[in-house]
Order: sequence, then structure tokens, then C-alpha cells
Amino acid sequence: MSQIDTAVENPASLAKAITELSSLLAERLSTSAAVRDHHGHDESFHKTYPPDAVAFPQSNEEVAEIVKICARYRLAVIPFGTGTALEGGVSAIHGGLCIDMSLMAEITRVSAEDMDCTVQAGVTRRQLNDYLRDTGLFFPVDPGANASIGGMVATRASGTNAVRYGTMREAVLSLTVVTSDGAIVTTSTRARKSAAGYDLTRLFIGSEGTLGVICEITLRLHTIPESIAAAVCGFKTLKGAVDTVIETIQMGVPIARIELLDEQAIKVINDYNDYDYPHVPHLFMEFHGSQASTQEQAETVQELAAEHGGNGFSWALRTEDRNKLWRARHDFAYATLAQRPGSKILATDVCVPISRLAECILETKADISSTGFSMPIVGHVGDGNFHVAPTVFPEDKQEMALVDEFHDRLILRALEMGGTCTGEHGIGLGKKQYLLRELPSAVPLMKALKKALDPDNIMNPGKVI
Amino acid sequence: MSQIDTAVENPASLAKAITELSSLLAERLSTSAAVRDHHGHDESFHKTYPPDAVAFPQSNEEVAEIVKICARYRLAVIPFGTGTALEGGVSAIHGGLCIDMSLMAEITRVSAEDMDCTVQAGVTRRQLNDYLRDTGLFFPVDPGANASIGGMVATRASGTNAVRYGTMREAVLSLTVVTSDGAIVTTSTRARKSAAGYDLTRLFIGSEGTLGVICEITLRLHTIPESIAAAVCGFKTLKGAVDTVIETIQMGVPIARIELLDEQAIKVINDYNDYDYPHVPHLFMEFHGSQASTQEQAETVQELAAEHGGNGFSWALRTEDRNKLWRARHDFAYATLAQRPGSKILATDVCVPISRLAECILETKADISSTGFSMPIVGHVGDGNFHVAPTVFPEDKQEMALVDEFHDRLILRALEMGGTCTGEHGIGLGKKQYLLRELPSAVPLMKALKKALDPDNIMNPGKVI
Repeated sequence: MSQIDTAVENPASLAKAITELSSLLAERLSTSAAVRDHHGHDESFHKTYPPDAVAFPQSNEEVAEIVKICARYRLAVIPFGTGTALEGGVSAIHGGLCIDMSLMAEITRVSAEDMDCTVQAGVTRRQLNDYLRDTGLFFPVDPGANASIGGMVATRASGTNAVRYGTMREAVLSLTVVTSDGAIVTTSTRARKSAAGYDLTRLFIGSEGTLGVICEITLRLHTIPESIAAAVCGFKTLKGAVDTVIETIQMGVPIARIELLDEQAIKVINDYNDYDYPHVPHLFMEFHGSQASTQEQAETVQELAAEHGGNGFSWALRTEDRNKLWRARHDFAYATLAQRPGSKILATDVCVPISRLAECILETKADISSTGFSMPIVGHVGDGNFHVAPTVFPEDKQEMALVDEFHDRLILRALEMGGTCTGEHGIGLGKKQYLLRELPSAVPLMKALKKALDPDNIMNPGKVI
Repeated sequence: MSQIDTAVENPASLAKAITELSSLLAERLSTSAAVRDHHGHDESFHKTYPPDAVAFPQSNEEVAEIVKICARYRLAVIPFGTGTALEGGVSAIHGGLCIDMSLMAEITRVSAEDMDCTVQAGVTRRQLNDYLRDTGLFFPVDPGANASIGGMVATRASGTNAVRYGTMREAVLSLTVVTSDGAIVTTSTRARKSAAGYDLTRLFIGSEGTLGVICEITLRLHTIPESIAAAVCGFKTLKGAVDTVIETIQMGVPIARIELLDEQAIKVINDYNDYDYPHVPHLFMEFHGSQASTQEQAETVQELAAEHGGNGFSWALRTEDRNKLWRARHDFAYATLAQRPGSKILATDVCVPISRLAECILETKADISSTGFSMPIVGHVGDGNFHVAPTVFPEDKQEMALVDEFHDRLILRALEMGGTCTGEHGIGLGKKQYLLRELPSAVPLMKALKKALDPDNIMNPGKVI
């Protein structure tokens, strides 16, 4: 796996690097085992690989100084947001220095007129939305976890609102990043559109820390809609639910959220939160717009649902009812873990063209049955993205083999349908071989870009490619 | 300017390259002076630099073979769409081979279910929309000219519909490109979203032929709205018109088009088309949606316009009236050239955050007055993008100096306001020094990327960076 001589294999230079970093950061550099362990894993089943030390910088300039020291000693640099990712992206598989961005958590600028803002990478999405509340604006990208904006940029995150508002790819106007040579680079202006040179902004979005450290982000914001209405609908069949989604999208209804939960997923959230949704496939939906437009959208979808065996619409119009609904959905990952205490989640993440979605989900459902293993399905189905989310005990080799083989079949099925192995979680450690299978002609170019921007391979080595 | 030994400086190897290309392409390789001249310029004031030869490939594989031959002889490769760009991007300043994509004009796949399609690079946007008409779908990006889709990808084009539907950045799902070594690379699947590796798709969008030849494009399509309404409104003052735009955007009205024409621009289109709009600043607008939503949007904007000195709304509800309206806007470039027969257009293209738009346009208007030179203003003002479009006689040194100095002041004004030197035309030949001024820390990275993907600098050398 190792392509570089990291300092971990060379204790003398590691010690020198730590000394220099200590004198730069004082108590904001930690080598304690607890801190290192905490930073060596995310929320997935991937094994913990603690870094050699963890730095807590407070400014772009400090990140640049840190990276320069690491570059000098060829110490791996692993940026860290909240540790809520799912592909092992923060595991320090080559040792090195973790850069925890949590002290860079300032919202530095909000422009209500331009509907944009600039934040440091450690700001979390809930922190930002709490801050924005009085401006009438909000930041829509919502991956469920209260992730940091920097982390969301790094993994090209999306989530429940992407069907209407897009992913981090559409949400970011400009970035300030520190590259492997310690340069501080601003990738773009904050003009809404530009044709000025190569799109470095998009190159760093989804680069998972392998091309540089994302320090500051300028984000597009959206007007909080005049009217928000949420609804839940149970279906006789999974196919009925998926077909409702497909027709909703094809009719051009600007739905804000349309989430699928199969009957297994419903059971999981009922158990966790003491809810009592019937044990059938459900759609959780949200409509944004003016009063008239929201109502028009909802009526259209209600009719479509009725044609596909939808069992009535249950409305959640009050804020507290909507929050309850989305908490149920957002708690899903924790709820499924609670079914098997001590287990870890192996979140699959395929995304297919919507014309193949029903076929892909139904074949997958049959495959799940054939394994005899319980695996709930949830999905941001308006985008064609769904997660089969088994919980596993990684040390149980037999169970892991069964789930790995299922996952392999799932990804091949999605690729054959013109889809991707990952809609929103990223490649990290876990999907490198699938990236190669998905985009065989593109990976050599990605490697050339990586080599150009990080010739010594110090930026999160061993991830993505 | 030259960074490479191009074959033009080495006639022996040029002759060999032409011989090999001839035997590959037969009559689809031209070295006639007329064909070379036609391919040596776009629609701007930039000087004609004819290529040494022009190739007309018919497949990705043929493009790959052509590029391999050029790579072997270090012959510059310049992709060509329709020649309707405005920054000299196709000028063969180092000689070399122009690859004209006009024979690759097949629409290879349309999926109504997925609302996407795949086209060869030579397909034009009108050809695509004519083809799509029966499907109920359309491709929204509309730069005015009937540009090729490949060219629109290369320049990250946008135009009148971008305020609602986004630019080419948002419109493209995946690309097939031929890189400088003749490899055929597919950058992504056609899944709606993906977190699989670096965003090569966005890297090639806006790369202006300097990183590879764009051969095939998978595009997102949109549902033709149930209701389309256009409207025209004259204003007492330019500021009133701009303030109406700003408030429309800030209120979150999903307007499809909102175009500014100052009184000079109105005069130009009146003269050209025998229209009789009053000689005051105007907004040309279009609303898309359901009947109810279109009406709601239009009423909101009509109220805003009235508050800012708008002189009534004139509706264009019938298709022919709408077409007439947008033809007037789209003919603007030709109309302004008609005012000075034999002149060329020097299209400026700044884009600023919308909070600074009124200030930027009004300062620019005052600057125009101070020059004593007639320069109309038109703009995709919903995005903060506007064009001051003087016509020039490039051989008139005094006139060119006056316009160049004005352009320099305009760009610096936009940059100081957080804007960009180019919203949609690209860098090409004309704005290289401004790119450096706009993104000084980013240009070294762009150069590193260029070197990584095109080490011998054969792909459209001398452009962008």
C-alpha cells in the first residue's frame, strides 16, 4: 500500500518534525494516545490507524507553516473535520500528522444581498444554519451528520436536499486551500459564474484531502422558502414507492427532499425512536416554495403516489413535526447501529440513472434476501442514490466476507446500469478498486494530477487513488 | 509568447506530419488557404492566425490518431467548433493543426426518462433543441450564437438562461476527451451525482482546448415548462432597472431570463431589426413554470419594477412574440457590428457579486461617457454578468488604445468588487494577464495541471495560461 517513505518508518525525522511542530503550536499539538486514537477513524467499519500527532491550527497561515514542516520531513498530512465520514478517509495508514480543523470555526462573512458567505473549514453545517437563521437564508446541503463544511467539501457531500439544491459541487463558489508545498491558494472569486481558467474549485471538491488542506470556503446560500411542507407516505410495494419518485422527477416537480426507507429501515427507526410507522416501504418528502407552489407540488406527488399504491399522505406542517420526521431519517445510521450494539456500519452508496433505479433496488432487495442477512435500505432516491446499510462486526471474517461479496455485486450491478460506486461518501480507503473499475481511462489522469500537485505524496497518502 | 518548438518553425517535420495526416484523413484534411483562414479566427477583434492544416475527423478514434501524429511531431492541436467565440481561442498563434469537429455532429443517445443525452462535440445547441422538441425536454444553456456543444464546454459558456438553469458547469454530466497523448478518456458516469475521484469533468469544462479535445458530451436536460411568459419593461433610469434585477434575485424568484439593455443597446437593436422600443434602459425577461407559478413570478417582478420606475410591463405570451423578443437580444452582437460596417467586436465580460452590480454598471457608464466613444451595455444581470460591447477597427491604433484602456479600467473595477474578468467568454488570448491579476495564487497550480496533462504543450498552446 505504501508508496512513500513516511516519517513513521524513520523515527529520527519524525521526532524532529514533532519538535518543530511543537514549537510552532505549543499545546495545540497533541501526541496523546487518546487524541491520536480519536483522530484515526471515522464512523465506518474501517480500522483505526492513529496519526503520530494531531495539530489544531487557528489560521490559514498556521496551516501553511504546518504543511511546510511536514513537507520538509515527508510526513503525511491528514486533514480532519468532525470524523463523521464513512470511507476511512481520515485513517492515518502511513502515520503522519492529522490536522484537526475544529479551532478554525469562524463564520467570517455573510452577505445577505449576495446570498453567500465565507466560513473557515471547521464550521459545521448546523452552526452555520443557526447563525444564518435571522438573515432569512440557509445552507441546504445536508448529509445527516453535523459534518464540518471543510469535510463536506473534501468528500463532495450531498444528502437529502441535493435533489433540489445540488451537492457541494454546486454549493461552493470559491476555496482557500493550502497545497503540498505550503502555498495558500484562492481558487476563484465569489462571482456567481466565471470562465477564468481551470476550475480549481471543483478539482478540490471531492479530493478527500489528497490535493491540499481546505481552509476557507465561500458558499452559495438560499432563501428560506416562504412555505415548507413535509409529508410521509407508506406504499404497498417498494416498486410503487420507487416509481412514484421516478415520475415525480420526470414531471419536473421541484421537490426539496424525497427519501426512500424500506420496511427494514422503518423497523429500525421505529425501534430507536419509539415511532410507529407501519412496516411497509415509505417515502419521506419535503416541499419548498410559495404557499401556492408548495401546495401544487404536493398535490401532484400525492396523485402519483395514489396511482402507485401509496397509502395516503400524512402531513407534517408544523416545524416540530417536520423536525421529528427528519430526525427519524437522520438518526437512521445510529438507529441501525443500535440494533447490534458494538457493531460498525458498512454504508454502501451506489447511484444510478433514475431510469434504472427501480430495477437496481429490486434486484438488490432480492440479493439481500438471498444473503439471509438483515440490511435496511434508505436512499436519496430523487438523485438515484441509495444506501444498503448493513452493520458488521469487522473481526467476524465470515460476516465480513458475506457483506463484502454482496457489496461487490451491488457495485457491479450499479456500474452496469451506468451508475457510480459512490454518490456522496467518496472513495477513501474502501472503494479504490471500484474507482478503477468505474473510470478505468480516467484514473491515470487523476494520478497525473495528484503527482503534479503533490509530487512527494504527503497529502493523505493511500486514499482515493 | 512561444514556449514550444512548433512544427511551423520546423518545415521538414511539418511536411511529414501533414503527409501522415493526409494518409489518415484523405480529403478530410485541408491545407487550402481559404479553409485555413476561416479556421484562424473567431467572431472577435483578435487577429487571424491560420493553422497549417485543418482536419475533419469523424470519430473519437480518429481524433486520437490525429493527436498521436501531432504529438509525435510536436504540432500544435487547436480544436474548433463553430468559430463563434470571442477571445481568440482558436487563433493558431503557433501554427499547427486545427481539428474542426463539425463532422462529429451526431446526437447519439437521448433518454427521456433520465432527462439526459449524449452528443458528439460538433452538435450545435439549436440542432439539439430541434431534435429534442418532441420529447418535451430542452437543453437550456443559450449563449446567443448557435455554438457547438463542444465549444460551449470548452469555454464554460452560459448566457441568458444561466440565472435559472446554470452554466455548462452544471449542464454536463460526463465527457469523453482525447488527451495530449492520444488517450480516449471518459471522465465520469452519467449518474446525477458522484463522489468518485477527482472531478475531471469540471476540469475540462472551461479548459479552452488546452488540456484535450472534447469529443463527446453527456448533458442534463430539462422539462419544457408548462408555461412560458416573456415580458419587456422600460425604465426611467439604468439604476432602476438594475435594482429591479437585484431585488428579484434576492427574493428568490426563479426567473428564467433577466437581461439588461441600456438605451444605447436599445438603439442598436431598433436600428437593426426595425423595432421601436423607447430609447430608455430595458429589462427583457422570461418566466418558466406552471401557469400559477409563472403568473406569481411575473406579478412579483412587475411590482418590483413599478417601485423602481419601470414603465409598465409589455407581455409576449405567444411563441412568435417571444421569439421576436429574444431574436432582438440574440442579434445584438450582429446589430452592433452593423452600426460600423467592417468593424470587429471587443466584447468585455466582467461579472461581479450582485450587491455591487448597480455600482459597477453606473461607474462603468460614467467611464463610457468620459471616453466619448459609443459603447452599448447588455447583460445577463441576474448573475452579475454584463458586456460593454464596443466595435473597433483593430488597425486604428488610437481607437484600440482608448478601448483597451477602458477595458483595463473596467476589469480592475470588477476585480476590486470581488468579481471576475470573464463570466462566460473565457480567457483565450485576450485575458491572460487579467487571469493572473484575478487569481495570482491559482495560476501556478493551473500551470502545474497543464504541464501534467500536456507536458509538451501541444494542446492549443499560448491560450489561457
